[in-house]
Amino acid sequence: MLRPWQVTLSERIDPERGTPIYMQIIHALIRDIETGRLASGTYLPSSRELANALGVNRKTVVLAYEDLIAQGWLSTEGTRGTMVSRSLPTGTSSQTATPEPEQRVEQTHYRFAEPPARALALPGGRGIKLDEGAPDGRLFPADQLARAYRSAINRASRANRMQYRDPRGSDSLREQVAEMLRSQRGLPVTPANICITRGSQNGLFLALQVLIEPGDAVIVEELTYEPAVAAIRALGGKVIPVRLDEEGIDVAEVEAMCRRHSVRAIFVTPHHQFPTTIAMRPERRLQLLEVARQFGVAVIEDDYDHEFHFQSQPLLPMAGYAPGQVIYLGSMSKLLLPALRIGYLAAPEKVIDAVAHRVSLTDGMGNTVTEETAAELIANGELRRHARKAWRVYAERRQSFAALLDAHLGDRVDFAVPDGGLAFWVKFRGDIDAIEQRAQAQGLRFASHRSFMARDSADKGLRLGFASLDDGEAARAVSALAEAAR
Amino acid sequence: MLRPWQVTLSERIDPERGTPIYMQIIHALIRDIETGRLASGTYLPSSRELANALGVNRKTVVLAYEDLIAQGWLSTEGTRGTMVSRSLPTGTSSQTATPEPEQRVEQTHYRFAEPPARALALPGGRGIKLDEGAPDGRLFPADQLARAYRSAINRASRANRMQYRDPRGSDSLREQVAEMLRSQRGLPVTPANICITRGSQNGLFLALQVLIEPGDAVIVEELTYEPAVAAIRALGGKVIPVRLDEEGIDVAEVEAMCRRHSVRAIFVTPHHQFPTTIAMRPERRLQLLEVARQFGVAVIEDDYDHEFHFQSQPLLPMAGYAPGQVIYLGSMSKLLLPALRIGYLAAPEKVIDAVAHRVSLTDGMGNTVTEETAAELIANGELRRHARKAWRVYAERRQSFAALLDAHLGDRVDFAVPDGGLAFWVKFRGDIDAIEQRAQAQGLRFASHRSFMARDSADKGLRLGFASLDDGEAARAVSALAEAAR
Repeated sequence: MLRPWQVTLSERIDPERGTPIYMQIIHALIRDIETGRLASGTYLPSSRELANALGVNRKTVVLAYEDLIAQGWLSTEGTRGTMVSRSLPTGTSSQTATPEPEQRVEQTHYRFAEPPARALALPGGRGIKLDEGAPDGRLFPADQLARAYRSAINRASRANRMQYRDPRGSDSLREQVAEMLRSQRGLPVTPANICITRGSQNGLFLALQVLIEPGDAVIVEELTYEPAVAAIRALGGKVIPVRLDEEGIDVAEVEAMCRRHSVRAIFVTPHHQFPTTIAMRPERRLQLLEVARQFGVAVIEDDYDHEFHFQSQPLLPMAGYAPGQVIYLGSMSKLLLPALRIGYLAAPEKVIDAVAHRVSLTDGMGNTVTEETAAELIANGELRRHARKAWRVYAERRQSFAALLDAHLGDRVDFAVPDGGLAFWVKFRGDIDAIEQRAQAQGLRFASHRSFMARDSADKGLRLGFASLDDGEAARAVSALAEAAR
Repeated sequence: MLRPWQVTLSERIDPERGTPIYMQIIHALIRDIETGRLASGTYLPSSRELANALGVNRKTVVLAYEDLIAQGWLSTEGTRGTMVSRSLPTGTSSQTATPEPEQRVEQTHYRFAEPPARALALPGGRGIKLDEGAPDGRLFPADQLARAYRSAINRASRANRMQYRDPRGSDSLREQVAEMLRSQRGLPVTPANICITRGSQNGLFLALQVLIEPGDAVIVEELTYEPAVAAIRALGGKVIPVRLDEEGIDVAEVEAMCRRHSVRAIFVTPHHQFPTTIAMRPERRLQLLEVARQFGVAVIEDDYDHEFHFQSQPLLPMAGYAPGQVIYLGSMSKLLLPALRIGYLAAPEKVIDAVAHRVSLTDGMGNTVTEETAAELIANGELRRHARKAWRVYAERRQSFAALLDAHLGDRVDFAVPDGGLAFWVKFRGDIDAIEQRAQAQGLRFASHRSFMARDSADKGLRLGFASLDDGEAARAVSALAEAAR
């Protein structure tokens, strides 16, 4: 016959639930101690009796009792069997009514910062996706990647390099990146000037951590990358959007803002402006550097897709001619694969040391195996071979995407074929909100024009990535968009 | 014959420098435009003339001119050759004296937060290392890891999953982790309650981001993990250390601090207290949860090496019986490999959504390939097999390390063999500062006792990891330490 307490216990044990029964018994007993249903000093039924009452194997109850004894919840003083430890406090009656853990998991009894209504990542789902300029992951040879991983694992394992390591990243990748930045982008750097990051966004987050304190201001282009704006705000920074034209950021406004606010950094994407794709003209670059120098402000130069310039050689980063003024961010997400999360930050050595400290706080260090894999792919030339191949594919896709936009959207849109980067910036003649709604209703997934706008007066447009879509996918995406813009 | 400007140019081109000559020419010209040595509208020498003057191949100069034209620095108006673009501003004389980029890279013209004098990571170098409780990376079968990577890459590549993804982490790993937490640790969770992190530290950093704003307070144990303290401070939080005894944190002091400060979170390591290795007793757990509930404060439970408990089954996390009060942090660093940076955070779904937003800001998302590799290793049972093997090895090393400490340090130290975790907490009878200095002088690398102390009145001791050392290494390390403590 069940005693009243055994009745409530047996009602709460459910073999159908995912949790093992022995674990359920443990939790139910802890819960009953916590709530005072089982007072300290109370003797429990024998394992045989409880097993019968619950209709479970006796061994299950024995296991649960043993664990609870080892953990100090129960004890076996004397000979009268198992009791609730005398040291435990007596539960408060206020909790007797609170539900079991399984029902409680969605209740929180503390305050936390709610996420914004619109997520920063592209909406998930099964519809046709128009990303913001991602590469085509299918182009990268999986075999080469797996081989590079194997070789990196073997080397790292032999050298016992799978432990906690340098927060700046693995030596071999820092050497490869420094060499690449020196020879291909003209940055006067050594490995001491490099910190490996988990992508450009991580580089930005780390740079902001060393540059700003709550209340400091950061200038951004009025059309920009939303996660950058969100990162500045999350760190307590004030975001100051500045006008943008076809030649780049309006430096006169930058200067005016530097006079008015405590500006600590200017975040720009001079190579392929995000989202508009335009390159910042040399005169703007020089003027911007001059203002930055004058006010002692760091320029954060995000060169997120350096390799993919189609009209000429890639433009040289400002960090090449003003290394003491610029914190340079790069990424292998576009060149290799976004999923590997490899980026880098280049700056004077003492800034790198400050950034490395922030790495220690933020995530400790990078993924050594992946970093050594990336170093291997640079060293063995595979990455270069892939870059050449991807460049040719994307150059073609850029042309066919332009043709598709012309054919399907014709005079309902304004766009220029971008000189570089993996996306088009497209402005619609019609009501963009209505077009977006219709496009979403058709299952098209894309970033809203609002996501790019750091101020209301900025241009409204969509950034349409062409590189990740093969011909058929591009045709379907553009025709769905055209349908929505009709 | 060289014109004066060509003289200064040729002096600055150096074939011995790492940067390619054509890149050096580009930078020297940009630099001369920037400083006004080359005014806008100035005609440059022909490529042949400049090549002769510099003693380089003419093609090199042609390449440099072409790039500078494409980028807008030079132009070819009319027929008189190449000129500095008329649109460029005239350089300011104030800069004519500033050195070349290669000499300038270590000068910064902006303010940034200097790192602390003592780095958080264990000092690098070649000496004998006594870590804080790292696993032995050599035990993990490199072959199994490489095979799992290959299989994950193939699957991810076929399904085109190498793109930007869910900031909460890959579905397959979240499912495996939820199942593992449910069945082995009794947490009432589904994949919606899981966010994959880049290790425990990253989990803590993300949790803090959603819990605190500048000025809020976080309670820590008076002996604790230094990067946790640093992360709280970096996010503007106030650190409140609370007394610790053999049963865990002093809950009466926790309560007093909650009354006095705006406490938003309590960071604890209840399973194997870091650094002292003690387990928090059941009564303290219940009292702590009660205080947390009363003041609406989140408990951050860091269960960083759950699997390695030697005296009994691992103790059940508080998150199992109080899921709405506890943000649970786990890691695969100890079980698998630190270098893979895989951890997880378990919390109510709406908290996970808030954390996912912070992932978007901090590093965008995790390393999908590594996450799927980890999921594969859980699913195919390799991780469990490895855990059993590692457990046996560490259980033996724990005994032999205790014997070594007894034999070499005898009554000069105080320690207990830890019930769980991968380190000993050792208090020295002598002057700890002097002992540390002598040990460092002998090339021993270890974390200073100061790194654990969140307040001055806390105990002084060293945390000595035993798991990563084989018998010979352990003997060398302990005898070096004994030498220093003599």
